[in-house]
Amino acid sequence: MHSAVINIKQKLAQFSDQWSPKIVAQMNDYHFKLVKLEGEFVWHRHADTDEVFLVLDGELTIVLRDREVRLKAGEMFVVPKGAEHKPIADSECSVMLIEPAGTINTGDAGGDMTAAADVWI
Amino acid sequence: MHSAVINIKQKLAQFSDQWSPKIVAQMNDYHFKLVKLEGEFVWHRHADTDEVFLVLDGELTIVLRDREVRLKAGEMFVVPKGAEHKPIADSECSVMLIEPAGTINTGDAGGDMTAAADVWI
Repeated sequence: MHSAVINIKQKLAQFSDQWSPKIVAQMNDYHFKLVKLEGEFVWHRHADTDEVFLVLDGELTIVLRDREVRLKAGEMFVVPKGAEHKPIADSECSVMLIEPAGTINTGDAGGDMTAAADVWI
Repeated sequence: MHSAVINIKQKLAQFSDQWSPKIVAQMNDYHFKLVKLEGEFVWHRHADTDEVFLVLDGELTIVLRDREVRLKAGEMFVVPKGAEHKPIADSECSVMLIEPAGTINTGDAGGDMTAAADVWI
């Protein structure tokens, strides 16, 4: 899968579950993941890494402790390492996440919304 | 610049020179760069890293020693570490590159098309 052409729309059409990132590519020890988000996630942080959100479709709000960041399709944001954040989407949006392989979606928070970090599509 | 919203289309509108990557975001020690490509690049390789090409607009061919990869907008490809490659675009295309900070566009080849690796927009 490492050196195949990845068509993002085709990959997005292959799943419908939300808050469950799917890996589509690996670059060195980083993963590119697609995820569909709707509703409100849990506050969490990634103590050891920055995390990139690239919105592919729809709109996403990332709430930080000191501000809210509003992203629409074609916009990206880097959540700094260690920054507490909570993604919120009023209606479903599709996002590409770029982060180190093995990064857990709920970071240090755990809980019911924790998803596997090793699912490829 | 690290934690601002990055609007990709707005960033692309800010430059017109080709084969000259512009950094728009940093994640840990990786850079996200935008570049406009037209024509044929030089054969080169990056001995120490994979390199991601995400086509934003237009079409791009990446020639490898054993095959050609054709990408259109919304498609991405990971050039494996050490793999010789040559990007070609019949007409101008816009691409996001993701690779370690400091990665030189011409890799080990050098030459006239070598661009600075530290230009932000």
